[in-house]
Amino acid sequence: MSAVRKNKLFFYAIAAVSLDGRIAKDSHHLTNWTSVADKNFLHKKLDASDVVIVGNNTFKIAREPLSKRNCIIFTRAIAQERRENENYLYVNPAGVDVVELLKNKNYHRVAVLGGTQVYSWFLEKNLLDEIYLTIEPIVFGSGLPLFNVIPPVTKKFMLASVRKLNSQGAILLHYVKKTACPNFLK
Amino acid sequence: MSAVRKNKLFFYAIAAVSLDGRIAKDSHHLTNWTSVADKNFLHKKLDASDVVIVGNNTFKIAREPLSKRNCIIFTRAIAQERRENENYLYVNPAGVDVVELLKNKNYHRVAVLGGTQVYSWFLEKNLLDEIYLTIEPIVFGSGLPLFNVIPPVTKKFMLASVRKLNSQGAILLHYVKKTACPNFLK
Repeated sequence: MSAVRKNKLFFYAIAAVSLDGRIAKDSHHLTNWTSVADKNFLHKKLDASDVVIVGNNTFKIAREPLSKRNCIIFTRAIAQERRENENYLYVNPAGVDVVELLKNKNYHRVAVLGGTQVYSWFLEKNLLDEIYLTIEPIVFGSGLPLFNVIPPVTKKFMLASVRKLNSQGAILLHYVKKTACPNFLK
Repeated sequence: MSAVRKNKLFFYAIAAVSLDGRIAKDSHHLTNWTSVADKNFLHKKLDASDVVIVGNNTFKIAREPLSKRNCIIFTRAIAQERRENENYLYVNPAGVDVVELLKNKNYHRVAVLGGTQVYSWFLEKNLLDEIYLTIEPIVFGSGLPLFNVIPPVTKKFMLASVRKLNSQGAILLHYVKKTACPNFLK
């Protein structure tokens, strides 16, 4: 049974974090610390997505693996939207109704790929239906958090599944928003 | 087979975090958001510990459940050490050789209970042999991180086990320092 609801947008964040909850050491940190198994999962998940939403910083780092995918790149550098090519659309979420834009394009499955500001934007708007969180067995001690929503909030999720991705100890946690719990989890 | 090595100190951090890696929303946030199952695990683990090391802020919040346990409370408010009673010893880690102190007391199994500064102190000194990390299915968006070590570091761990703690989705991850990997994990 598919978790994608008809005629509705379905948003899922996909993130890899250190075991201490950091998506990167800093904004220039490449994702070369994530496992092959996580990258395989990520690309399979993106293959099954209609569009990827990503922040401009993250996009600059991940541009190559995102080529040939439909990407909406969040940026404050423009007023509304600007199309770079068939695949890449730059959007200022403060100047555009993002949900309307996605509906108009007939997108359903929307992968939210970060970084912190983009994950936070969707969390604050209560749009995140699911979170796929890969935890790599590494500690960074500090760095970029998954979310940076101030003041703090309390949002409950359900753990839908746990999967060991490899023998080194990368683990994939799949969370579903509690109020948006699909039938198969009830 | 016990992971505790004879004639040696064995340090393990025990922490509960939100799925976005926060140990609390702020320094006054009580741990009433952690599951009963996690609290049960915690107290079982503390029962099997010789001593608990905890920061003064965390101790103020968790004083009641820590009564009758050997506690070393880290604080900057004193120069070296001050005993409050048979169980509670206040220590300034900048003024005391903590490892020597623990050895002199013939402690072996040392539970590191946080908060952020205390976890970070042990991480920076490469003393953390294991991390028991409970991830509760909740998002805080911001708050206190597990570690705050600046600049960031890279420390590798192995995932020794994964355990579902309850039906709500609390999950317990047990990590072992890669260089200190016990034989039964090799």
